Formats: sequence, C-alpha cells, structure tokens
Amino acid sequence: MQSDCDPDRPAHPGVFPTREARKSDHQPAGCSVNFPVSVVLPAGGTGERTGLLTPKQFCSFLGRPLISYTVQAFERVPWIQRIVVVVAKENVDLMTDIIQRFQHRKVRVVPGGSTRHRSICNGVLALGEGEEEERPKVVIIHDAVRPFVEEDFLYKIAMAAKEQGAAGAIRPLVSTVIATTQEGYLDHSLERAKYRASEMPQGFTYDVIYQAYQRCSESDFEFGTECLHLALQYCGTNAKLLQGPPTLWKVTYKRDLAAAESIIKETLSGTACVITGGSAQAVTLADALQKAVGALDTELDVIPDLLGENARYLLKESNFIQVSVNGSSLSEVETLLRDLEAVNQAVLHPLVVIWMHLSTSDELSVSGRAVEPAAIMDLASAAKLQNILLYGIQLHQSKDAELWERSVLKVAEITSALIRERSPALVGQLLQA
Amino acid sequence: MQSDCDPDRPAHPGVFPTREARKSDHQPAGCSVNFPVSVVLPAGGTGERTGLLTPKQFCSFLGRPLISYTVQAFERVPWIQRIVVVVAKENVDLMTDIIQRFQHRKVRVVPGGSTRHRSICNGVLALGEGEEEERPKVVIIHDAVRPFVEEDFLYKIAMAAKEQGAAGAIRPLVSTVIATTQEGYLDHSLERAKYRASEMPQGFTYDVIYQAYQRCSESDFEFGTECLHLALQYCGTNAKLLQGPPTLWKVTYKRDLAAAESIIKETLSGTACVITGGSAQAVTLADALQKAVGALDTELDVIPDLLGENARYLLKESNFIQVSVNGSSLSEVETLLRDLEAVNQAVLHPLVVIWMHLSTSDELSVSGRAVEPAAIMDLASAAKLQNILLYGIQLHQSKDAELWERSVLKVAEITSALIRERSPALVGQLLQA
Repeated sequence: MQSDCDPDRPAHPGVFPTREARKSDHQPAGCSVNFPVSVVLPAGGTGERTGLLTPKQFCSFLGRPLISYTVQAFERVPWIQRIVVVVAKENVDLMTDIIQRFQHRKVRVVPGGSTRHRSICNGVLALGEGEEEERPKVVIIHDAVRPFVEEDFLYKIAMAAKEQGAAGAIRPLVSTVIATTQEGYLDHSLERAKYRASEMPQGFTYDVIYQAYQRCSESDFEFGTECLHLALQYCGTNAKLLQGPPTLWKVTYKRDLAAAESIIKETLSGTACVITGGSAQAVTLADALQKAVGALDTELDVIPDLLGENARYLLKESNFIQVSVNGSSLSEVETLLRDLEAVNQAVLHPLVVIWMHLSTSDELSVSGRAVEPAAIMDLASAAKLQNILLYGIQLHQSKDAELWERSVLKVAEITSALIRERSPALVGQLLQA
Repeated sequence: MQSDCDPDRPAHPGVFPTREARKSDHQPAGCSVNFPVSVVLPAGGTGERTGLLTPKQFCSFLGRPLISYTVQAFERVPWIQRIVVVVAKENVDLMTDIIQRFQHRKVRVVPGGSTRHRSICNGVLALGEGEEEERPKVVIIHDAVRPFVEEDFLYKIAMAAKEQGAAGAIRPLVSTVIATTQEGYLDHSLERAKYRASEMPQGFTYDVIYQAYQRCSESDFEFGTECLHLALQYCGTNAKLLQGPPTLWKVTYKRDLAAAESIIKETLSGTACVITGGSAQAVTLADALQKAVGALDTELDVIPDLLGENARYLLKESNFIQVSVNGSSLSEVETLLRDLEAVNQAVLHPLVVIWMHLSTSDELSVSGRAVEPAAIMDLASAAKLQNILLYGIQLHQSKDAELWERSVLKVAEITSALIRERSPALVGQLLQA
C-alpha cells in the first residue's frame, strides 16, 4: 500500500493566510520576482461531460464559486500582475458577475475556444495585446479547479520558467500505470518510480508559449492537453519539473467537492477571537475556554474590546465570541455586527459571531433566559443577509467546581462545532451549556 | 481540462443499501456466484510514512474505523465466504477488538509481513490452510482504505477471475503521465488514451495467486506492489481489466478523510422516518415537512407508529423524527429510544432522533417551552452513550398561513442540518423554529 499521505491543508488556503502562514515566511527569504508575471486560468468546462448541472469551477462553497477561490489565490500574490480567466462564451456574463460580486481586481474575462488548448491560446494572446512592454515575461497557466495553490510554489514555477523557458508541477503516481491490449487485457505495467503525474501550475516565458501555439498543428489544438509537450515539441524546451505539494490536487470527482469544502472550513475555523468586555468573570470564562477549545483545534485570542490595536481583528478574523455577563441585552453583539459590516470582511466568506451569555446570579438562572429567543433570532436573520452567522450560547456560572468545568467543556464543544460547521440553518438559536 | 466527474456516491456505501440501491437490483439479473470466493484485505500500514498518528485504515468516521466499513462492504455480500485482514503484528490486538466491537463475522486476522506482497502472501496462505475443499476457487484482493466497493463490481471481478485466472479494476488516468530525466527535466509524456490506472479490487483463482507467490523472487517480494504483474510474469496470465466506478478510490491524502466522511454522512442522511402518533395536526406537519425536506435531499417516510409492519423501520432507518403535539412529556421519545436500543442498530453508526414538539394552543406559546431544557439534555446524554444523537425542535402552529409556511421551512432546514451533520456537540438542544 502506498502511503503518500502528506497533510494537505494549504498554508495559503485561497481564503486568507492561516495563523501558521502569518507567523512564518513562505516565500524563500530575500527572493522577489523582478519581472512581470501574468496568469491564464482556463475555466472553459461547460459541465456537459461532468454529469453535474453546474460545472465544477462554478460550484459554490460557503456561498462562493470555486473559481473565485482560485482567482483569489493569485490575486493576493503581489508580484502577479494580471489574471486572464478563459470561460465558455455562455459563461462570460456569469464570470463577470462573479468578479464584481467578490470584488476581484487584476482579472479579465476572455471567451474560450472549443478545446483546452484553444482556450489557453486565447488567454495567452489576450496577455500579448497592447504595447510590447506590457507583455509578461512569464505566463503561469493553472486550472480553475485547483484553488489551493500557494505563493511559494508559484514563485518556484515562475523562477524556473524564466530560467528554463518552461516549468511544471509534478506529483508521484498514486496508482500503478498499466498498458492495456485492445481486447482489454493487461499488456504490461510501468515501473512506477520512473514516471510522474503532470499537474498544474505550469510556467512558460511568454515567447515559448506564444511560439508553441503559433507552430503547433490543428491536431494538437484538437486532441492535445499538455502544454509542456508543445513547448518540447515546437520550441525544443525541456521543462524543469518541480514536485508540488498535495494541495495542488484538481477538484475532479464529486467527492472532491466535499474535500474542498472541508479544507475551506478547516482553514476558516483555525482561530477565533474572544471579546470579554473586560469583566473579570468573562476573562475567567475566556481563559478556561481557551484551554478547552485549544484541544479541539481552534486557537483563541482573548481581548477586552476591539478598540485601538485590537481593531485589526476585524480585518483578519473570521470567528468572534462576544462574552456578555448577566446583562440581558444584545447591545454588545449589535455593535460588533455593525463594526463587521463596516469593514466588509464578509464579502469572501461567512463570518461566525457567537453571543455567549454567562449568568452568575441565581435569580437569572431561575428565570432561565438571558434574552427572548425571538430577539436573537431576529438579529441573526438580519446578520445572515450580510453573510454573518450569529448564534447564542448561554451558561450559568456554578459555584460547584466540577459542574463549572463540565459547563465550560460543553461550551467549548458547542463553540467548536458552530465554528467548524458554519451551519446557516442553526443561526439565531440560543443553545444551552 | 479533463472533466471525468462521474458522481461517486456509492450505491452500496459500506453502511447500508441506499434507497436507490434497495429499489434497483445491482447484481446482474439471474447471476449468482456458485463457487467459493474469499477475500484478502491488506491493512498493514503502520502510519510511519503517512505523517498521521493513526494509520488511515484505523482513522475513525462517526466513531468507527475505516477498516470496519471496508470489512462490512464484503461481509454483506452473501456469496463471500471468508475475509482475511492482514495487519502489522503490533495491530493484531487492535484489529481483533474492532471485529468484536462492531460485531463482524467471517473475519480472521493474520499478522502481516514487512512489505505489501509479503502481507498479501500471508493472507493467501491463510486461506489455503485446512482441508483442500475449504480452499476458495477465487481470491479477491482489495485495499483496506477503499471502503466504498460495491457488490456488483465484486461480482464482475470474481466472474472474470474465474474465467481468465486474473482480473483487475482500472480507471482512466486523471493526469498526464510523464517520464523525467535524471536531472528533473521532461523527457516525454505518455499518450494518455493508451494507459490506465490500476486500482483495486483484483481477483485471482487460488491456483494462480498461490503459484505466483511460490515462484516470484525476493526482489518482487521486497520492491513490487502489483499482483497483476506477478500473475503475468510467473503464471503467464494476462489479467482481464474492468473499468471500475470512481467509488473505488483509495483514501490516500488527508483531504480524502473528509471526502470519505462526507460520503458516509450523505448516505446516512438520505432518508428519515417521521412518526406522527396518528394525530391529524402531526400528519399535517409531517406532510408539509415531507415537501420541504425533499427539496433538501432527504426523503421522509411518514408513519403513525412503529407497530406491526412499521417495526421494520427500526432495522433499516438511521433517522427518526418523533412528532409530539402539545403534550409536555418526553414519553414517546423515551419509548422510541428504548426500541432502538433493543434492536441494536446503533452498533455500526450513530442514529439521529429528533423530538419535534408542535404547540397549537396559544397558552403554551406564551409559556414558551414544551419541556424543561434540562429534561431533554439528560435524556440526550444517556442516549449518546448508546450512539443515538437526540435533538429537540419546537414550533408553534400559527394560524397565519405565511408564518406557518415559514416555520415549516425553518424546521425543514434545521432537521436537514441535524441529520446531515450528526453533530455530537449539539445533542440535547431544544431548537426554535
């Protein structure tokens, strides 16, 4: 059994840099790309051959089409100048809408041809339009359905392409490759170690990829799929091959949709920010939660408020826990929702806000409820329209240490599940710990 | 772009036959296997090379290790006689525990060798022990980490193996395969149409696989991985190759764990059973739900109770919705939980029970609560120990048609989310529609 099971959570997940990515420096130290690099993203599939109603690149993940994640993966790389997305003619309007809706810059939509090579060729030609000095030195070609590509690997491809004329990502073969007879019997099997799977991204100097498409035959345009092959055959360029991470994988089968959603959700649920309002009891709860939730794979940052320096959390965090002690109003969470709407972070992915109500007085625990369920439901319905998912959790601060520990653990489990699952159906619920 | 995106939800998902599978007849009509077939499941990986703490075959999905799903996929095929699971010596006890805990029959655990071929060979030899008439005519070899294999494909492999001596599953290549130079440059690319990926299961007559292992070299044992190759080289048997469904895919990368979990959950959430107690209001709610939930991909069967014929639902259904009108006791759901525990269906996967409380009188809507939250939480905690996940939903029957429609839709969304996500953290919650 082959066990090539590298962890494939991306460091840069097409969403935003994760905590680890923010801490480390993924781009090789001291290196920067000092020549123009642009991208062609063929996204021409119409879904006719897939059996799905929606082509994969337009399938939604947390309300956003896959192609938008891929575009974002390139857009956030500062040294990438332009991105040409090539789509089937009938999808040009759809793609243009996506670019507007998710506020992409750097992107131009170009109608595709009838085959993969014709579409890529259209994209390359579009990059060559205009003044000669606007032409990219290197063109990176990638698939719309490989959304988790990372900056450090793009950097390696761009540098190798500039040096060698062409460069491509490879991965080890997962299965043995066999040749079959015409009658459907085994002819021979290939020695796995000598071969690799050719993946994306690939990079070319503009001249190499342009010449390759100028010189290749109609048959290449019609039946070929491999750009590295054209560069070899028509420009004599042997591409440099670089082993890519498993995150380069292509969303191909229905099961890959689930895998992609899981990676996106996992990335969004890595951290959360707890706002205590400064109350000592809230801080105690936050500290206890921090320990319990850490064991469940979410890291918590505890802050008193979102003022001053802490306002940066509004720009980078996807999960907020507003602790409220004894009070029976939702005013703190209303303020948080207004702040989040103001910074417009929910454009790209749903934010989670958990209103955590801690009651310490016995009277409140008898009356049992912090607020009317209808109040939080109404607030949640309004927030959902802004792509913010609001949930409530209430717990009572028991004086019995064991009961208290059990409550905290329960709150941690519920919090983790809400953040991880991001379920729109459960917004506005007031859950009990 | 290649668009080989067949839907890969299994018809037989390693869990139980889905609704479609129950309706249709997957095994070719009129065919039955009238010779002894047994199975070798190499599950020898120790996880050392995977970077994960737990080898993939022992990773848990909804509380059950992957290997148990694979074993079950074979165990439910009536014409399969014995299953030999080959595990690393240090995992023999673990595997034996798994077999006991999930009540597998037909299974024998055998310690593996130092390589894949040595392990499979141990399994084949174990099948040959004892009287000659007990030997299988055909041996099917499969991977422990391909849990979604279906009976109809096993049938095809067994028949082809008996006729040809050897048979194996193939799949189209997803990526172009390229040969590399020693220096890491492109040498040439293979014409994709002429090659296939060799997958599992594979089938052999006992004689062929036994002879192949008798004759093969130490080097084969040490470095080889492909049984079809041994059959060709040492017995002159050209295996018949059969294109398998995408569900044969091997759980290889971390992302595959998410994909596998999603397939298992999707299969478990295909249907649910609504128990109305016969009340007219409950039937009205159930009918409205049936329409709304159908749009969300779960089919509902509505029944008055679980008596007589309907007791069969206890044996085949994984999701139950107990409707309760106005009453403020949990007695109906307590009865349901007792019935479910009695039939022992929760051994293989968690069952979902939703207590749906419909209030029709205005007084109850003012007091606001059907039961004390603590009562349902206590019941849910006890049920969880039996692998039954209990949730509550309450809704009020409004006389305003629009409000009522909105409530039903909300209940449908919540119900669907609970059934699909099967979140242990949210058991015992009383949700509001």
